[in-house]
Amino acid sequence: MSVAARLFDQHRETLDTALKAVRTRDHWSPFKESPSAKLHGEDAPRLGKARFDAQLGKSFDLDQPGTIGTLGAEVSPYTRQPLGITYPKSDPAALFAASRKAMSGWMKASIEERAGIITEMLFAMEKNAFENAHATMHTAGQGYVMAFSGSGANALDRGLEALVYAMKAMQDVPETASWTKRFLEPEPVSLKKRYVRVPLGPAVVICCATFPLWNAYPAMTANLMTGNPVIVKPHPTGVLPVAMAVRTCREVLEKAGYDPNLVLLAADEPLDQITIKLLEQPDCRIVDYTGSQRFGTWIENNCPGRLVFTETAGCNSVVIHSASDFGRVAHTVARAMVTFAAQMCTAPQNVFIPRSGVQTPDGTIAYDDAVEALVSAMDKIAGDNTLGPAIAAAVQADATIENVKAMTRKGAAEGNILRRSGPVSNPDYPDARTASPVLIECDAKNEDFYGEERFGPVSFVIPVDSAAEGVRLATSQARTRGAIASYLYSTDESFIDSAEPDYLAAGASLSINIDRGMPMNFMGAYSDYHVTGLNPAGNASLTDLAFVAPRFRVVQMRRPG
Amino acid sequence: MSVAARLFDQHRETLDTALKAVRTRDHWSPFKESPSAKLHGEDAPRLGKARFDAQLGKSFDLDQPGTIGTLGAEVSPYTRQPLGITYPKSDPAALFAASRKAMSGWMKASIEERAGIITEMLFAMEKNAFENAHATMHTAGQGYVMAFSGSGANALDRGLEALVYAMKAMQDVPETASWTKRFLEPEPVSLKKRYVRVPLGPAVVICCATFPLWNAYPAMTANLMTGNPVIVKPHPTGVLPVAMAVRTCREVLEKAGYDPNLVLLAADEPLDQITIKLLEQPDCRIVDYTGSQRFGTWIENNCPGRLVFTETAGCNSVVIHSASDFGRVAHTVARAMVTFAAQMCTAPQNVFIPRSGVQTPDGTIAYDDAVEALVSAMDKIAGDNTLGPAIAAAVQADATIENVKAMTRKGAAEGNILRRSGPVSNPDYPDARTASPVLIECDAKNEDFYGEERFGPVSFVIPVDSAAEGVRLATSQARTRGAIASYLYSTDESFIDSAEPDYLAAGASLSINIDRGMPMNFMGAYSDYHVTGLNPAGNASLTDLAFVAPRFRVVQMRRPG
Repeated sequence: MSVAARLFDQHRETLDTALKAVRTRDHWSPFKESPSAKLHGEDAPRLGKARFDAQLGKSFDLDQPGTIGTLGAEVSPYTRQPLGITYPKSDPAALFAASRKAMSGWMKASIEERAGIITEMLFAMEKNAFENAHATMHTAGQGYVMAFSGSGANALDRGLEALVYAMKAMQDVPETASWTKRFLEPEPVSLKKRYVRVPLGPAVVICCATFPLWNAYPAMTANLMTGNPVIVKPHPTGVLPVAMAVRTCREVLEKAGYDPNLVLLAADEPLDQITIKLLEQPDCRIVDYTGSQRFGTWIENNCPGRLVFTETAGCNSVVIHSASDFGRVAHTVARAMVTFAAQMCTAPQNVFIPRSGVQTPDGTIAYDDAVEALVSAMDKIAGDNTLGPAIAAAVQADATIENVKAMTRKGAAEGNILRRSGPVSNPDYPDARTASPVLIECDAKNEDFYGEERFGPVSFVIPVDSAAEGVRLATSQARTRGAIASYLYSTDESFIDSAEPDYLAAGASLSINIDRGMPMNFMGAYSDYHVTGLNPAGNASLTDLAFVAPRFRVVQMRRPG
Repeated sequence: MSVAARLFDQHRETLDTALKAVRTRDHWSPFKESPSAKLHGEDAPRLGKARFDAQLGKSFDLDQPGTIGTLGAEVSPYTRQPLGITYPKSDPAALFAASRKAMSGWMKASIEERAGIITEMLFAMEKNAFENAHATMHTAGQGYVMAFSGSGANALDRGLEALVYAMKAMQDVPETASWTKRFLEPEPVSLKKRYVRVPLGPAVVICCATFPLWNAYPAMTANLMTGNPVIVKPHPTGVLPVAMAVRTCREVLEKAGYDPNLVLLAADEPLDQITIKLLEQPDCRIVDYTGSQRFGTWIENNCPGRLVFTETAGCNSVVIHSASDFGRVAHTVARAMVTFAAQMCTAPQNVFIPRSGVQTPDGTIAYDDAVEALVSAMDKIAGDNTLGPAIAAAVQADATIENVKAMTRKGAAEGNILRRSGPVSNPDYPDARTASPVLIECDAKNEDFYGEERFGPVSFVIPVDSAAEGVRLATSQARTRGAIASYLYSTDESFIDSAEPDYLAAGASLSINIDRGMPMNFMGAYSDYHVTGLNPAGNASLTDLAFVAPRFRVVQMRRPG
């Protein structure tokens, strides 16, 4: 029995359960989401940290072809010190040549063999979860707990989810068929047909700075499962988590007897970026992109002949009509704005509140009081000595801090500053680049200001004549500027019913009345579809048939028989 | 019970059987492929012809919005006389406005309701099969039997096939889910989720001149099933078959209580074409194109933000290594070249024959004798008084005749003319525009000449050092210039085994040793995947998940519960 066949046997139950999970869409995961030592053993956290520390200042060991030098310019958002790690600098043409070569052997692997190997990659990556949590903290700036799950279980789940979708799409194509038809002659004609699922060709997976792996894993597994080799292009400020994943995938491939060049790293530096050179390679057939809407749209429009998937960003909104417990709503929204300095693609930016106030079972909360509740919830969360730094984490880039300053100036000129951004002091990392949200009150008419994504901890309160006006503005901006997540609070079922069609028409997925127990913007693998592809926030749901089916095609061979 | 629900009940068994057929991929059809009066009743052929005759010279009755005049410039390739039919001239913006408006009601129809209505459309269109056969003959130039099946059963089958694929993709998304997960608090969080399948938006279906409906039906059904309204743009020389289909679809929609503007006609004239204006409309979200590779590639590269499906053309090849009965091979290939003057996208163009001849059980047939056999088979088929005109049919466009002349001049200068093109006399239509194939012997090195599609009855024989060289050239041209169908003849299994990887690598579907009982280039619905999407002959297989899954997206609504 081959290694690949054995791996399939080993992971068969996981795969079967994942296939059921994407159908029932209840919560499920074969990975450990919590970094608790109870789950992993006393030593695991310490060993992971030690491995991360041991990597600092050293060359990252990755034996891959096409290396023409070294590079590396990562700086920790927590310590503000360079990580000092160097990575291979690669020749794009050589990467694609190696990629193309690796593809031919992989084409011969069966669906089961591929699935076994890729699932093994995911579990092998989980073994690095602690080391990866530190790598993600010190590149993306995430907090420890978020980094552990966001580059660990949560990302691995999305990877497994995309893998089983790709399996489904491929299994929809039978291997062979017998076909018999009468034409004009009395004797019917019989043909034997063979249907070969042929991969499109090398894929470039472009990762973002703040969530280096959450989108990368599903793109990698979707491509590998459908037979396409991947060249992973980390953000130049967040190479380490990606390089670790690439190395692990290569080790698993090698052990299973396949060419490790099915997974290659294409690292670069902020001042010498390689992305466009990769996309221009004639052999580049698929592009999976996560990052800014501007570059995402450029890729959508400028890569003819490539299959392009994008997950970018949008202008996420909260409309507050009424609430059963407004305090919880204010706390939930404030917390989502403080969390990781609103650098998540699902973080809310604009809060629409009726000028007439928010209805509750205990009477109407006046607009000013509602705003005040939001501000004080932000103050409380960001100011909490323990919770504040853990939740607010660090700001990935200096440019984001500059953006907060610029938006604050603009807000003072064009609206009212309800709350100023400030540092969130972190006793473990006194030099950490941190920021709590600025909250700007902005006129509903000033859509040029609040009506587009303002990256980082920049939030707006927009007073509206009615919650219905809020829905109209929020959904019109979702349609024209994009939105990945939208939020609505109302205790009035008829209001919710009247609002839903607007969100549907804007292609905006909606969370209603989530005010306790979980972060409002948590996205669950096997359950939540991600980007809708119906507005400018990208075209890739990450996990549906549209995300996987076009990555391979069918070539048929037919002959009498 | 609604009309739509009743239609679903009525067609449920057909749909179930079609779903099974695309899985087993054996021959099946619920439609009648033959025009035999035995199947349809004595009167049917005559009545269909009478209805076609009655339409000539009249305005085509189609009540749709946005009409700003009339147009019509069709000329029969058989009689060379104008059909004299006028159609509505439409304002593109008004068509899209009507289309967008119709979509909202259609979004509310269930999968079953949509499937019932669309299947009903297909059976309603079948009722016009005789009239449509004449409409197709006198616009596309097809022969009567081909027109009957090619705009009838064969096209309807592809339509039903795409419909059930779209059903599959949509049914893969559950309507609702319950999700329960523990976060940090002891009490788990429960959410109810609703997943709404939202159509992308209006689709433009662009039809070709020679097969007006074969590609149109699957594009129409794939779009309608996934919720998208369609604006059908016939080729300006072949409006009638398409207009008939549009009218029938509108009637079925109206009877079922849906907005008939879900299906609209956008006709034009050769000297005043509307295609680009349609594609430029901001509301155009999907493009389904059939036609030349040049315009297809332009559309692929110049419609950012639209989902583009293309079925264009390529340089189809025959490689002859050896044969159990070379006479049958020569006859089969010659017949495919004569049939409909090689205006089918699967017609072979280039025949690679080893200079050392073709091996057979009775010894080697010398190269010159093999060529001679091909020429005399062409002569025999084209020269047969009954079969010749029925098979060769008519040449759709004057430009194709000009192309044959130009290629003949070029062939005389750069190669040898093995056989000259000539008229195929047709006693029923003495003025018919007909042409038998020119056959040009061309040096293997002269790829600029034979290595691209030369539309119409232009064929090449390329002498090669070996059949392996033929495979190398044929597959290299398929990869770089495109191919929709490739053909190989060999009695040597090891030769076939060695050739297949080259075809796979070129994304070229291959028919092996088809030398009797059926046209070598017949493509069977529910069984044959069409364009592979792996070479420049287009990106749309017509019938796989990739053809349907991206036409709709999922918007989710989630809330505690």
